[in-house]
Amino acid sequence: MEALVTGVAQMGPIQKIDSRAAVVRRMLALLAEAKARGCRFVVFPELALTTFFPRWVYEPGEPALDAWFEDAMPGPETRPLFDAAAAAGIGFYLGYAEKAGNRRFNTAILVDGTGRIVGKYRKVHLPGHAEPDPSRLGEHLEKRYFHVGDLGFPVFETMGAKIGMCICNDRRWPETYRVMGLQGVELIALGYNTPTGLGEPYQAAAQANMHNELSLRAGAYQNATWVAAAAKCGVEGGYPMIGQSMIVSPLGEVVAMAATLEDELITARCDMKLAAYARTEIFNFARHRRPEAYALITDRVGAGEPVVPSRAQMGLDDA
Amino acid sequence: MEALVTGVAQMGPIQKIDSRAAVVRRMLALLAEAKARGCRFVVFPELALTTFFPRWVYEPGEPALDAWFEDAMPGPETRPLFDAAAAAGIGFYLGYAEKAGNRRFNTAILVDGTGRIVGKYRKVHLPGHAEPDPSRLGEHLEKRYFHVGDLGFPVFETMGAKIGMCICNDRRWPETYRVMGLQGVELIALGYNTPTGLGEPYQAAAQANMHNELSLRAGAYQNATWVAAAAKCGVEGGYPMIGQSMIVSPLGEVVAMAATLEDELITARCDMKLAAYARTEIFNFARHRRPEAYALITDRVGAGEPVVPSRAQMGLDDA
Repeated sequence: MEALVTGVAQMGPIQKIDSRAAVVRRMLALLAEAKARGCRFVVFPELALTTFFPRWVYEPGEPALDAWFEDAMPGPETRPLFDAAAAAGIGFYLGYAEKAGNRRFNTAILVDGTGRIVGKYRKVHLPGHAEPDPSRLGEHLEKRYFHVGDLGFPVFETMGAKIGMCICNDRRWPETYRVMGLQGVELIALGYNTPTGLGEPYQAAAQANMHNELSLRAGAYQNATWVAAAAKCGVEGGYPMIGQSMIVSPLGEVVAMAATLEDELITARCDMKLAAYARTEIFNFARHRRPEAYALITDRVGAGEPVVPSRAQMGLDDA
Repeated sequence: MEALVTGVAQMGPIQKIDSRAAVVRRMLALLAEAKARGCRFVVFPELALTTFFPRWVYEPGEPALDAWFEDAMPGPETRPLFDAAAAAGIGFYLGYAEKAGNRRFNTAILVDGTGRIVGKYRKVHLPGHAEPDPSRLGEHLEKRYFHVGDLGFPVFETMGAKIGMCICNDRRWPETYRVMGLQGVELIALGYNTPTGLGEPYQAAAQANMHNELSLRAGAYQNATWVAAAAKCGVEGGYPMIGQSMIVSPLGEVVAMAATLEDELITARCDMKLAAYARTEIFNFARHRRPEAYALITDRVGAGEPVVPSRAQMGLDDA
């Protein structure tokens, strides 16, 4: 329950030919700027070490696919990032493709100011498809390459705050934020790669930034938590992705936002006490929530038939 | 699954001395305008027939409190509204204080184009307090005067659409929209009375309109549903309330918004097919939701301790 000066390290495009070493050099530059600007915590994007490879079609198990995944964390290429962050006393969130035995996850780790991995999250809401469809304007094959995350939405007490994580599409689902809100989360870190132009033209392109902002602000407000969201953005392999990395206050206001589609650091002083009034009154969950009315949220996966009370239950005269 | 031209009938202040007959005359004027503008469905506010009485302190059971509740629906004063709406073939949502035997609810009804009450909703998320506190800038005693709603969040198939209801503070809780989304809701109608200036100065006053818009747009977008929200607004008994009645599309865009704090009708053509793409792709619940990760939402009421996986579960090297 104190203030954590937080940086969001937006990253511009990473092309297929860019080496991890080259990417980590860019991250080190962002980290150095974060240190100079007083940050104690930095959020890097989803799958931050490589291009967004789920746009390309691979067969499961083929070496070219496997090459996008990390064998170890930290590994030889990422060790310099851990070392530099620990030397600066800065913790960070990092998204990467994780090998876990025979399973593969879209993963983020939480590293504290000493370089220790204190938490892990594996993406629950995988968007897109498992099968390629050449009739689409572009592929989004996360359901093909990743298993569904098996760690829930844990919240970790570290760096003087209660920090949760999610990844990209998770941010559009109110359940994501609420499960962490019910653990008292104070700051949610997330990275994203959000392509535009792959789907129905109006929704997918014209509204992508609006939906990003709406999702992040609603999750923050409704759970009285800071949200720090880092994009990988710009044009990768001919495909555009949104930027608009932002830090949102527990009152749902955007307090910092990226102005480019390139490597760019934004910062805010995240005071965990800012949400105290909201947690005591309007979003005092213990006083106001009514789980007996929420059963469908965990009982159903997809939408089903309406559940309608009888006219007698509703006290209607003809009952 | 067709288009329903919908009107939101915002209402300016209703003072303590205003009779129900006078209020219904104002509603009839709004209804006449709705007819002239092609509406087939009109949304009136929460507790639309009287002043917002939970700002005043009464003892349970005292006649002055009981007088704010309706003995019958329709009753003698509201019958002209039902008759005029049926004559025009217009359905409506109406909020009022309901007596149900010994119980009291903050209620809304759904009336179809023939004047028949086809659905009822009783407010689940009652804000405010049960005990008066003269140190506050103003009272908000809904927890004192109303029982918690006992009908869930039902969705009714009527007027060619799947219509759900909620009331005021319900709109700030993502569970409200999701429970209806899981029943395939296409249009959510709601009324509200939202005072400003009663709480922490920055949040309660400066941000009230922003939070209203954010809540309504997020609920619409995340469930691919229309939302039609009607304020009672302006200054009642010296206490100001926000306006900003609006209609939000299933893509989260505000497509109509009130421009005054007075009686005012806004309209939109609500095409239920507009959400078809969202329901097939990004918010295809059956494909993407993961209730196994949502257990806390129904298992917990208030926020509790973090649920943290072991380091072995997270596959961390030192496990």
